[in-house]
Amino acid sequence: MAGKKVAVLIGSESDLAVITAALEQLAKFGIAYDLHVLSAHRSPDAVAAFAERAEGEGIEAIIAGAGKAAHLAGVIASKTVLPVIGVPMETNLAGGLDSLLSMVQMPQGVPVATMGTGKSGAMNAAILAAQILARSDPALRQRLVDFKAEMAAKVVAASEDLRKRLGLTPGS
Amino acid sequence: MAGKKVAVLIGSESDLAVITAALEQLAKFGIAYDLHVLSAHRSPDAVAAFAERAEGEGIEAIIAGAGKAAHLAGVIASKTVLPVIGVPMETNLAGGLDSLLSMVQMPQGVPVATMGTGKSGAMNAAILAAQILARSDPALRQRLVDFKAEMAAKVVAASEDLRKRLGLTPGS
Amino acid sequence: MAGKKVAVLIGSESDLAVITAALEQLAKFGIAYDLHVLSAHRSPDAVAAFAERAEGEGIEAIIAGAGKAAHLAGVIASKTVLPVIGVPMETNLAGGLDSLLSMVQMPQGVPVATMGTGKSGAMNAAILAAQILARSDPALRQRLVDFKAEMAAKVVAASEDLRKRLGLTPGS
Amino acid sequence: MAGKKVAVLIGSESDLAVITAALEQLAKFGIAYDLHVLSAHRSPDAVAAFAERAEGEGIEAIIAGAGKAAHLAGVIASKTVLPVIGVPMETNLAGGLDSLLSMVQMPQGVPVATMGTGKSGAMNAAILAAQILARSDPALRQRLVDFKAEMAAKVVAASEDLRKRLGLTPGS
Amino acid sequence: MAGKKVAVLIGSESDLAVITAALEQLAKFGIAYDLHVLSAHRSPDAVAAFAERAEGEGIEAIIAGAGKAAHLAGVIASKTVLPVIGVPMETNLAGGLDSLLSMVQMPQGVPVATMGTGKSGAMNAAILAAQILARSDPALRQRLVDFKAEMAAKVVAASEDLRKRLGLTPGS
Amino acid sequence: MAGKKVAVLIGSESDLAVITAALEQLAKFGIAYDLHVLSAHRSPDAVAAFAERAEGEGIEAIIAGAGKAAHLAGVIASKTVLPVIGVPMETNLAGGLDSLLSMVQMPQGVPVATMGTGKSGAMNAAILAAQILARSDPALRQRLVDFKAEMAAKVVAASEDLRKRLGLTPGS
Amino acid sequence: MAGKKVAVLIGSESDLAVITAALEQLAKFGIAYDLHVLSAHRSPDAVAAFAERAEGEGIEAIIAGAGKAAHLAGVIASKTVLPVIGVPMETNLAGGLDSLLSMVQMPQGVPVATMGTGKSGAMNAAILAAQILARSDPALRQRLVDFKAEMAAKVVAASEDLRKRLGLTPGS
Amino acid sequence: MAGKKVAVLIGSESDLAVITAALEQLAKFGIAYDLHVLSAHRSPDAVAAFAERAEGEGIEAIIAGAGKAAHLAGVIASKTVLPVIGVPMETNLAGGLDSLLSMVQMPQGVPVATMGTGKSGAMNAAILAAQILARSDPALRQRLVDFKAEMAAKVVAASEDLRKRLGLTPGS
Repeated sequence: MAGKKVAVLIGSESDLAVITAALEQLAKFGIAYDLHVLSAHRSPDAVAAFAERAEGEGIEAIIAGAGKAAHLAGVIASKTVLPVIGVPMETNLAGGLDSLLSMVQMPQGVPVATMGTGKSGAMNAAILAAQILARSDPALRQRLVDFKAEMAAKVVAASEDLRKRLGLTPGS
Repeated sequence: MAGKKVAVLIGSESDLAVITAALEQLAKFGIAYDLHVLSAHRSPDAVAAFAERAEGEGIEAIIAGAGKAAHLAGVIASKTVLPVIGVPMETNLAGGLDSLLSMVQMPQGVPVATMGTGKSGAMNAAILAAQILARSDPALRQRLVDFKAEMAAKVVAASEDLRKRLGLTPGS
Repeated sequence: MAGKKVAVLIGSESDLAVITAALEQLAKFGIAYDLHVLSAHRSPDAVAAFAERAEGEGIEAIIAGAGKAAHLAGVIASKTVLPVIGVPMETNLAGGLDSLLSMVQMPQGVPVATMGTGKSGAMNAAILAAQILARSDPALRQRLVDFKAEMAAKVVAASEDLRKRLGLTPGS
Repeated sequence: MAGKKVAVLIGSESDLAVITAALEQLAKFGIAYDLHVLSAHRSPDAVAAFAERAEGEGIEAIIAGAGKAAHLAGVIASKTVLPVIGVPMETNLAGGLDSLLSMVQMPQGVPVATMGTGKSGAMNAAILAAQILARSDPALRQRLVDFKAEMAAKVVAASEDLRKRLGLTPGS
Repeated sequence: MAGKKVAVLIGSESDLAVITAALEQLAKFGIAYDLHVLSAHRSPDAVAAFAERAEGEGIEAIIAGAGKAAHLAGVIASKTVLPVIGVPMETNLAGGLDSLLSMVQMPQGVPVATMGTGKSGAMNAAILAAQILARSDPALRQRLVDFKAEMAAKVVAASEDLRKRLGLTPGS
Repeated sequence: MAGKKVAVLIGSESDLAVITAALEQLAKFGIAYDLHVLSAHRSPDAVAAFAERAEGEGIEAIIAGAGKAAHLAGVIASKTVLPVIGVPMETNLAGGLDSLLSMVQMPQGVPVATMGTGKSGAMNAAILAAQILARSDPALRQRLVDFKAEMAAKVVAASEDLRKRLGLTPGS
Repeated sequence: MAGKKVAVLIGSESDLAVITAALEQLAKFGIAYDLHVLSAHRSPDAVAAFAERAEGEGIEAIIAGAGKAAHLAGVIASKTVLPVIGVPMETNLAGGLDSLLSMVQMPQGVPVATMGTGKSGAMNAAILAAQILARSDPALRQRLVDFKAEMAAKVVAASEDLRKRLGLTPGS
Repeated sequence: MAGKKVAVLIGSESDLAVITAALEQLAKFGIAYDLHVLSAHRSPDAVAAFAERAEGEGIEAIIAGAGKAAHLAGVIASKTVLPVIGVPMETNLAGGLDSLLSMVQMPQGVPVATMGTGKSGAMNAAILAAQILARSDPALRQRLVDFKAEMAAKVVAASEDLRKRLGLTPGS
């Protein structure tokens, strides 16, 4: 485990199924993480308290997943200079357009690094956190390089497998 | 001036041109109001401080106008049991769809009474605030009844004027 | 039961499954409510008759849930000075964007306090109604304060439970 | 002038600039029309009164133009068995998506014959009204046939003109 | 059966499940109808042939249901002076926003009377067709008046039933 | 099999279920095709390598299916002068609006021939590829003419079948 | 001039300002073109006549620009086996979302090769037409290769110019 | 100037007016930056070359602004393990919804840290880059803390100024 930590926040326990993709990816990179359920609207004082103490606890980046009027990432970002990464949850309204716009359209001065909606976004949040930590962690940087190479290799392998199944000759 | 007060908040000084419609309507109803520029993202502590002291200052309803990832109304609502009325500002993104969704799609437990986008929404926020105060203020209630009657009369008069201009006979 | 009453209206019997969240929340707050199925388009005279008699029956706030071209709340609001709270039903069109826009984009002069789409919106409509009634009902105001505290405590407890399940130490 | 009449309604005097396209087209077809400013939200009683008397006044079809939460056409349609044609006004919200959805997504039982947004929609409303009246007016039907032929001829002429200006040979 | 006829067109056999709501409503009104599967894109000549012969066959109004780039109604309307009523099918793209916009946003000169998406729209298409035929059929007009009254009565009855089930007193 | 070849690319193996509609249609036209899984983001070097060698391998047109931020078609198009046909996959975000806009809104200079979302789009991609190849292949052109005629005949037959099932007389 | 021809169609003379980008690009590639104003809705017979004779006149690809319920490209495609390229015009409704969806969401069997909205789309339509013609025209193919190289060189040059203006050293 | 560098990329010279907000903010933080015009579609080889050499040149984070089918950020991210921050340009299509979705909806494995549309997004991109660099640069971290404090102070001052202009007493 690297000494540095990422905090993963979700607005509701029901977001766990999505954010698990972030937790697993962080674990694969060997990045220690912490997790809290924190609601910008239902537990605002706990949110503010967390945002104020996060940097002091050694947190280097914060991932916040939330849905609908998804203010969690923005509220955290208003109270810390740590990079805040947002994961908009899919909802019934156009598949999460509400979550996405509530998270990404931040006013000037307070950025939220917004990912795509749902599980892919959660996994990508972990990768972006790793990319940030890797700026001062050469071993983690190498794991990211290896991850990228494995990902490319998997696509190539999937392609070859599929071509075989469909009876396409390797040279065709 | 009625003894009760409405607080009007805007996320940025540039929202004044829109929220003026609320201020003017409150003044017409004889409702005392207070105004603050408060940014959910840039001045979060001032926002929290206001939300905590508002009820103690005699505020009965809060109007909050904001744009883009418009969290101001929601953040206020997370910290008070006063009714919070939101006015989504028009933006370049589909005319304010970002502001509207960020404001109206609140998670369960913390409502924001959302108005339409822009100036009409601002004027309506003042009327809703008046409707709330009027529950315990019969004189204000009567002013709302009169306002409604005048509004209807104005439409009827506009119709008659237009019909004359177009040469349509009154009985046609 | 408090002496004051909230009227809950639905445009169709099929909206009951959603609006139940409002009824339950009103009951938890001890607020007496009445319920009617009223269609702005199919039973317009019943709608008008209700709007005209509501205030006289002691109604203090009206919750109206409707879908698609959701005119019910607006039609009621055109005929009363009571605060009208709208709950846009989820539909197949982008998850209820039609209901939402038909309800929230009211022209100047006639506000509808619009909630988010679906069940969360229904529950929030009840809370907003309670916030309005609480302006002249200190006991209800206290129940809202307690509700807010319980809600925050539940999130904190959910966070602790989840952290235990995931084996995260309390102090990490 | 034909003996039959079309009623043209607008929600606000400011909609006249758009609905003029309908008035001019009705005049070209020799269809007598009447015009009223009627607001579903600001003058609901005048709207209901009109809807109830329209058929008795010899009105055969009603054109209603309105914007934002555009309920005018739907409210009229709820009170009459005359065909109601809706013209959604362009607005700042995605160019009138709010007006369009508020008008077209009527619940079952009460149709509004919805046109496209803005001036083209207004002109088309007049043509649809003419198509309805023409079912029992052979002379008007012939004017519609001629109108269609002239429209086609104009496009062909515009094409030839443009081709000449661009130096494209007739036979190329 | 009334002597007049409505033609009901669908772009694909799979649209039958939706358009059935129109067929049933026409039958209830005693309106004779004809039905064809006609694709604006796959069988354009059959579409043109139908449009040209429809009026001669005694058709008084045409209902056309289609999905996605839903051109069927517009293509028919380009070739006839009969009123054309469009029913946009629900699709995966935002629930049918593609069908709706392809149908309603007609250029000036060629209206399509557009209904809401899906089954409600199909039923409403039949009602609008009846409203058009009723202009010269007093018995049908009376059936529409009765239909409207029954519809209102059903809503009132549903309301009473629901109130009983929920234990709300008639006078509460 | 024609001597010419179409390359079919998918961004992920999970897109196979959709793109199968293209493969089947190409096979029906007797067009030889090749298939690769290539990810613009996960295997960028393989994508570039393919784009550079495609023309040399005798490929005449490229079909690329991808979802979400669907860059595959555009990235291929940036590296070849072959016609590139894009198939946007359906997603949870408004049914694939993200895929569609990411594919079709190409900047000037680099076109992607974009099809509709999902399976219909995949089948159409194969037909467009055939139309392109048919410019120099008269036998294929004839197969397209025949395909068009069969398609029209099928619609007519479906119409007759349906009319029989519903008891509509041939001449009605 | 190459012997082959592209037909460029616009639904209205007002679309010329946009489609000019296609005409200019075709001219730069030395591709002979023809231009017609043809309205799917206002001059349907002229559209059908053109579609039927186009191939016989030596046309190899058709570019069709139209707006709103943009059926022109689809209607042409229903009547020819030539590749049809669509250019959706920008409109007030979300900047042309209506035109785009009406064009791209074609049902299975009849593809339209859809470009992006507006001028960029028009220019790209010409490039796609050139890519199609280039399949049997090696000189045109070379012009496309050169065009691509020039385009890249222009971007590199613009970058260098801008860097100089901003005082960024070449090696920084 | 700090020793570390941020690369700022734009897809077209016309994006400079927007991205200037990022350049100015980087300069205020004393962060050295480099700027290139690089088009994912028109100069793909230059893009790939830059992505491959960026880390070796000491770049620690990359800001990429692009519009429409905005692939630049994603293409860069596919080729580097550096954090890539995307700024979607405003366009005519719903104000930049195309740019936003093309950038943010990245498939799993390759994140782009997406900002809001336009100038606010550009400024926020610079702040996020600073937050990333600040993880190993305490002086920069302090500048971010100061920036946050100044930003809050400015809002408070704007509020006081506005209240004075409107004649609201400090204590009201």
